[in-house]
Amino acid sequence: MDFKVTIVVTLKPSVLDPQGTTVTEALHHMGYNNVSDVRMGKFMEVSVQASSEKAAEQQAHEICKKLLVNPVIETYRLTIKPAQEAAV
Amino acid sequence: MDFKVTIVVTLKPSVLDPQGTTVTEALHHMGYNNVSDVRMGKFMEVSVQASSEKAAEQQAHEICKKLLVNPVIETYRLTIKPAQEAAV
Repeated sequence: MDFKVTIVVTLKPSVLDPQGTTVTEALHHMGYNNVSDVRMGKFMEVSVQASSEKAAEQQAHEICKKLLVNPVIETYRLTIKPAQEAAV
Repeated sequence: MDFKVTIVVTLKPSVLDPQGTTVTEALHHMGYNNVSDVRMGKFMEVSVQASSEKAAEQQAHEICKKLLVNPVIETYRLTIKPAQEAAV
């Protein structure tokens, strides 16, 4: 069965986010002074073929820990859906 | 009132995603051959001060179109929540 895994990787709250700061400053320069605290993160969509949703989820966590996420400075969350449902 | 806007920016399906391809290949090299179609995107969290949720949403769309999203190759979606609720 095909599953669609959606992964969101964000910096831990205690970690400085220079990219977010730059965007905040750019927005202020453009006149959006009511905007603050821009935090940037990564978004990933992955197709996983697995026998069950549980197996796919387990593998997705494994992939995150081994490759996609730096646990020292980042946290992640993921959602998983059957591929057909995700396409709707 | 403070609102927390969550923005997900993804490449349009027709646009090549070299970063995603690299991650897919890395995963295959690591033995995860059941994984395919990795697509990378950006994730942003923005705090917006506005009089109403509707005003915050309108401004968030404006910011996306003017700064955060390249409409030629990217699409975006956003969700908006009162800041207190988002913190829970």
